[in-house]
Amino acid sequence: MTLSRYGTTFDLLRQACSEDWHAYTHHPFVEQLGDGTLSQQSYLHYLAQDYVFLVHFARAWALGVVKAETPNEMKVCARTVDVLINNEMALHVETCKRAGISEPELFACKEEVENLAYTRYVIDCGMQGDLLDLLIALAPCCFGYGEIGMRLVRGCAPDTPYRSWIDTYADDEYQAALQSIGGMLDDAVSRRLGSDPKENCRWPQLVKRFEVATHLEVAFWGMGLRGR
Amino acid sequence: MTLSRYGTTFDLLRQACSEDWHAYTHHPFVEQLGDGTLSQQSYLHYLAQDYVFLVHFARAWALGVVKAETPNEMKVCARTVDVLINNEMALHVETCKRAGISEPELFACKEEVENLAYTRYVIDCGMQGDLLDLLIALAPCCFGYGEIGMRLVRGCAPDTPYRSWIDTYADDEYQAALQSIGGMLDDAVSRRLGSDPKENCRWPQLVKRFEVATHLEVAFWGMGLRGR
Amino acid sequence: MTLSRYGTTFDLLRQACSEDWHAYTHHPFVEQLGDGTLSQQSYLHYLAQDYVFLVHFARAWALGVVKAETPNEMKVCARTVDVLINNEMALHVETCKRAGISEPELFACKEEVENLAYTRYVIDCGMQGDLLDLLIALAPCCFGYGEIGMRLVRGCAPDTPYRSWIDTYADDEYQAALQSIGGMLDDAVSRRLGSDPKENCRWPQLVKRFEVATHLEVAFWGMGLRGR
Amino acid sequence: MTLSRYGTTFDLLRQACSEDWHAYTHHPFVEQLGDGTLSQQSYLHYLAQDYVFLVHFARAWALGVVKAETPNEMKVCARTVDVLINNEMALHVETCKRAGISEPELFACKEEVENLAYTRYVIDCGMQGDLLDLLIALAPCCFGYGEIGMRLVRGCAPDTPYRSWIDTYADDEYQAALQSIGGMLDDAVSRRLGSDPKENCRWPQLVKRFEVATHLEVAFWGMGLRGR
Repeated sequence: MTLSRYGTTFDLLRQACSEDWHAYTHHPFVEQLGDGTLSQQSYLHYLAQDYVFLVHFARAWALGVVKAETPNEMKVCARTVDVLINNEMALHVETCKRAGISEPELFACKEEVENLAYTRYVIDCGMQGDLLDLLIALAPCCFGYGEIGMRLVRGCAPDTPYRSWIDTYADDEYQAALQSIGGMLDDAVSRRLGSDPKENCRWPQLVKRFEVATHLEVAFWGMGLRGR
Repeated sequence: MTLSRYGTTFDLLRQACSEDWHAYTHHPFVEQLGDGTLSQQSYLHYLAQDYVFLVHFARAWALGVVKAETPNEMKVCARTVDVLINNEMALHVETCKRAGISEPELFACKEEVENLAYTRYVIDCGMQGDLLDLLIALAPCCFGYGEIGMRLVRGCAPDTPYRSWIDTYADDEYQAALQSIGGMLDDAVSRRLGSDPKENCRWPQLVKRFEVATHLEVAFWGMGLRGR
Repeated sequence: MTLSRYGTTFDLLRQACSEDWHAYTHHPFVEQLGDGTLSQQSYLHYLAQDYVFLVHFARAWALGVVKAETPNEMKVCARTVDVLINNEMALHVETCKRAGISEPELFACKEEVENLAYTRYVIDCGMQGDLLDLLIALAPCCFGYGEIGMRLVRGCAPDTPYRSWIDTYADDEYQAALQSIGGMLDDAVSRRLGSDPKENCRWPQLVKRFEVATHLEVAFWGMGLRGR
Repeated sequence: MTLSRYGTTFDLLRQACSEDWHAYTHHPFVEQLGDGTLSQQSYLHYLAQDYVFLVHFARAWALGVVKAETPNEMKVCARTVDVLINNEMALHVETCKRAGISEPELFACKEEVENLAYTRYVIDCGMQGDLLDLLIALAPCCFGYGEIGMRLVRGCAPDTPYRSWIDTYADDEYQAALQSIGGMLDDAVSRRLGSDPKENCRWPQLVKRFEVATHLEVAFWGMGLRGR
């Protein structure tokens, strides 16, 4: 497995559950985004759910500010809240608007069970544990979308109607934000687990949180394919 | 619809989503508990999931102690945590032990997506709102099981193998605990919404929380029937 | 009493405890900032404590993002976190650096009991209640500093060495941020208390939270004057 | 220094700040409880503040249930909430009632700044960190009162009017509860820090939390002596 650009902690976590990681990042939903065969209906269903997902995902990153213990942890978490609310969600609002769905409609959209499970699980990781428990539950979504974006931008069908989705996640600024998150995660790990995280007694529990969140990504794509 | 024994707030909420309430309290899983046709495999799958459910449900009630604003709110929430941990979970531990599943195995049981969605949603209602947002998300499970227990104990098949489940929820002490919860909920409502809760501007949002939790009960029974 | 520029909720709250409000906004510490008689030692002691205050105050605003229930509530809370971390704290870092105190030293500064009491009380208002309980505990610091800045910038001694402090809070952008906070607070009140907040049963409790936070401002200035 | 009866983690923490620990457990307020010279006015002022302290201290232990990660962590935290609400607070309610102060008056008692600082700091340790951060901030109050009770019961003036206070904390059941808390703390440490906690990178931060809480105990006694 090639190393990622998002730091050593993420590499360790991904290696610890590589099959699940592949099931998530190469899910049929993802492949159909790349080759353009995804139905518009599935895409819009996914996008509306993902808008609500981002609302709660931004809440989870804000909980990261509450739980931060260094100036840099605070700054990176705060910047990520800002990027989510003011940039990433704009893609959803724009695309859905063109399809006739307004932002208040998106905000009020009924959450599917897979959606509820994912975001509330992540928030609860933060409530139950410390910043590390939270960051590691946040990691699969952040870095997985980053990986998918980079892979699809290089290999997608030239005429896929989902090019703007792909570009959002392959975008240089988005990738730079992920690198700064990855660096902060490495620092947060070394502050709390020391220099050899795999030997720390908390490691198995943290890997489990990463796995649960990765499974919930798979379930989320499945929900997208299922349509409404 | 007959009035419940659990206070006026619960009556108002149940009336506000009576179809969903019926779908939950008369779900095929429930009917099969009563007539004894539920497969043992479904029951054990449900029971193991429900054990983990109760772990997080007890955490949610403990969050109620954190959010309480009167001595009585504190006392009822604390007593409920105690009942859940020291009484209700004992049914699960005993039954599963007889089926060869130990408590540590139960505690480590992999949560189904419907299970994660439900308990983490309830906990997050408490994080996002005040005690009332939390109590109303806790209500469907408490009062619904109480209703189901009372209905089945009167009308179940004499030889249903699920009699101990039914008795747990029809039990006098359990019913008395629900009445004290219902009374506290009424007080919590009158403290925060005044004497005419349906006219308070928060009411629609609170009904929505009750509805979401009721849907998640339906999904939970469905997960039970599906088996592993 | 003249009306403020920060919205009707703030006006109601200030009127409900006008004596305490005057004791806070016209505290000797404040007057000495304006006429320039405050000792440099007191100022630096205050500034170091205030830096740590802002760390936890930013955490409290981030908790606001966690507790928000509308897109605008999320956006205003997130923007405020950003302003605090990336702008307001810069004044402290710059000034302290010139006095030989580095940012890591500031971050590690031992918190005085008045400081601990204030920020942790505010955060706990958010934990115990809903967004409104939190916003109202946040209000005295935000709007009080805004008022003090506007009053001192018009009437301070021309040669006060504390001009940059005054300018920070009289600054147009800072004042605009306060107006947007005040507007959001008015909306948050109308969403949760309806059109006549003083008649809502939660009002006395909310006024009490505002009063406690105002007392804690007075105690904070006293701590500043006391020096180390 | 003699070893305590409350487990090895507590011994390590106490040794790490032995001067502060002595200042707390041998504070003039404590000595005056033992020799009976404490003024009735100071005692009642302290007792009313301590009642409100216990309200929030019970909320902090309830947050422990929310943050627990094993069945035993849940059970010990839940039992402690119960002991605080249903036993320890009864001493305060009884004593204050004889002095003409009712429970609702106690509950509404205006908190001194030292009181606010202490309980809200402890709760925030739980919000910011994991269960260990919370437990270690809870430790000085629990174990310190246990130590004080045991020392005074052996050496107090035979006619001190504060004998019922002393007995409350020297009580066998109270001491047994502390031992079960101490054992759970040792397990929680070994689960999160491994077998040599002093070598874990989190240790200095945890010691700091213990120190801050110990300082806040000293400030609390000072508040008691100061009277109203």
